[in-house]
Amino acid sequence: MQNSLTKLLNIQIPIIQGGMVWCSGWKLVHAVCNEGALGVLGSGSMYPDVLEYHIQQLHHQKVYNFAVNLPLLYPQIGDHIQLIAQYKIPIVITSAGNPATYTSKLKEIGCKVFHVVANLKFAQKALDAGVDGLIVEGTEAGGHNGREEMTTLTLFPEIRKLTQKPVVAAGGIGSGKAMYALMAMGADGVQVGSRFAVSAESSAHVNYKNAVIQSQLGDTVLTLKEVTPVRLLKNDFYNQLQNAYQNKASVEEIKQLLGKGRAKKGIFEGDVQEGELEIGQVAASITKLQTVKEIITEFKEDYQAAQQQMLNLNWQ
Amino acid sequence: MQNSLTKLLNIQIPIIQGGMVWCSGWKLVHAVCNEGALGVLGSGSMYPDVLEYHIQQLHHQKVYNFAVNLPLLYPQIGDHIQLIAQYKIPIVITSAGNPATYTSKLKEIGCKVFHVVANLKFAQKALDAGVDGLIVEGTEAGGHNGREEMTTLTLFPEIRKLTQKPVVAAGGIGSGKAMYALMAMGADGVQVGSRFAVSAESSAHVNYKNAVIQSQLGDTVLTLKEVTPVRLLKNDFYNQLQNAYQNKASVEEIKQLLGKGRAKKGIFEGDVQEGELEIGQVAASITKLQTVKEIITEFKEDYQAAQQQMLNLNWQ
Repeated sequence: MQNSLTKLLNIQIPIIQGGMVWCSGWKLVHAVCNEGALGVLGSGSMYPDVLEYHIQQLHHQKVYNFAVNLPLLYPQIGDHIQLIAQYKIPIVITSAGNPATYTSKLKEIGCKVFHVVANLKFAQKALDAGVDGLIVEGTEAGGHNGREEMTTLTLFPEIRKLTQKPVVAAGGIGSGKAMYALMAMGADGVQVGSRFAVSAESSAHVNYKNAVIQSQLGDTVLTLKEVTPVRLLKNDFYNQLQNAYQNKASVEEIKQLLGKGRAKKGIFEGDVQEGELEIGQVAASITKLQTVKEIITEFKEDYQAAQQQMLNLNWQ
Repeated sequence: MQNSLTKLLNIQIPIIQGGMVWCSGWKLVHAVCNEGALGVLGSGSMYPDVLEYHIQQLHHQKVYNFAVNLPLLYPQIGDHIQLIAQYKIPIVITSAGNPATYTSKLKEIGCKVFHVVANLKFAQKALDAGVDGLIVEGTEAGGHNGREEMTTLTLFPEIRKLTQKPVVAAGGIGSGKAMYALMAMGADGVQVGSRFAVSAESSAHVNYKNAVIQSQLGDTVLTLKEVTPVRLLKNDFYNQLQNAYQNKASVEEIKQLLGKGRAKKGIFEGDVQEGELEIGQVAASITKLQTVKEIITEFKEDYQAAQQQMLNLNWQ
């Protein structure tokens, strides 16, 4: 399935794996790239030496065409960019920050740059900064998230109108049918996060994966809106937040309650009650642990089924 | 375009017009039915004598195959149901209440019954109560809205799995491409609200329509969550609400600020600063006043364009 996105990124299928903190290490990237999609290292949860280790592991496996997700507010971003240059990483996906600052620098060192956006303003800023494409993420996505709370279905078409460059849809894409749906709306490809967070190759803790698998419809929530909005699974930590909100806690008190390292505690260390369990609304659709190969095979079957079904549903 | 939904409802295209307060009078229903879709009277903003007038107007126009939207918490619901029986209304769309109470009564008087749901629990309750189909509404929809804040893209597939009966997608369906997308995900049809709220035939005030037309991405918000969650356009009234929330107002104080008749003031009387301007996130995509005929023609063109584009995008 070749289109402008697959050609630009040198991949076989227009699926980008979300670069998720504590999930997206070299094993996940390796598995995703093996299936012809774009694997993405989640550098937001890696110190520079850890990022370097994961890059080296991929190179040892002869995997070179992968991306690094670079949160633009990462404290040691200079070190990360140096590694990206040194190891000639072909694609960088920037997020959580102003694309004006780093896009030209990344382009100079030879990277293709995609920026993740959740509103019109940053989409325009990213295009002005010269990105190669956009990833448009709706509020149903897991983890850090836009303040406007626009859903993928309503946000995507408005951003699509801005540019002829590749635009990728993200947030709520949990099946090949959803992928087909968004591509019919004009997406050049999709980014899939939650499904891969719960894959066998994800570096997340098995307790986290099981918590997602057991979750039901409506079990995720967008919270911490005064700090940085984040979508997570409801648990004891979330209940503590709710109590604090009900007791009219100040932003400072909420920040203290959050503390440091909550996402690591939940996702990587498997403390599913005290940790921050970042995941998207598609969590409800995830019912078992699968390998990346199984997930992508299922996407393909569902995509084909959707296409087949729509062949003859003509509006004449 | 015939399928199980069009056959059941005796319509030509699988589009249901949302039964919206202060917008969905007999003129809108007439125009929608004329185009082969299902028009729906919004009885939630009508006293029984007003509902009777609108039904009579439609019958004078020889329009019989339309629906009434019946909010199940409406105070004079008995009178409304009596009118539905008396005038042999063929289809009733229930919402905002427990489907167990009235579904069998409506079925007994010969109505086909669809219930609007925003979560798994009420979907199952409605099916248990014997509804003919479900309308699944995501959080991007305008007006009153589910507490779970599930988006259409993630809510719809989970409800779809529950039943072989017709399931209609609602919330964020602002174009024929979005309609095609949701039908590819298994919807038997779509409900369209906001686009018709701003049509020439909508009974809403021109000031309200202009406010929606001028709105931008991110200008709607889901608020009043402690009272009844509602999605509306930000304006002075919303700013007053925000101030109250920031000053830690009690639920009682919020209810007092809301008062009575805010939706009528905004939508029907055109006070766009002091009224409640209910509208969905697709507001951002609405840029001009169109007739129902123009809107449905555009839907058809966009649907066909999406289908054409996907014919050859094969995943092999």
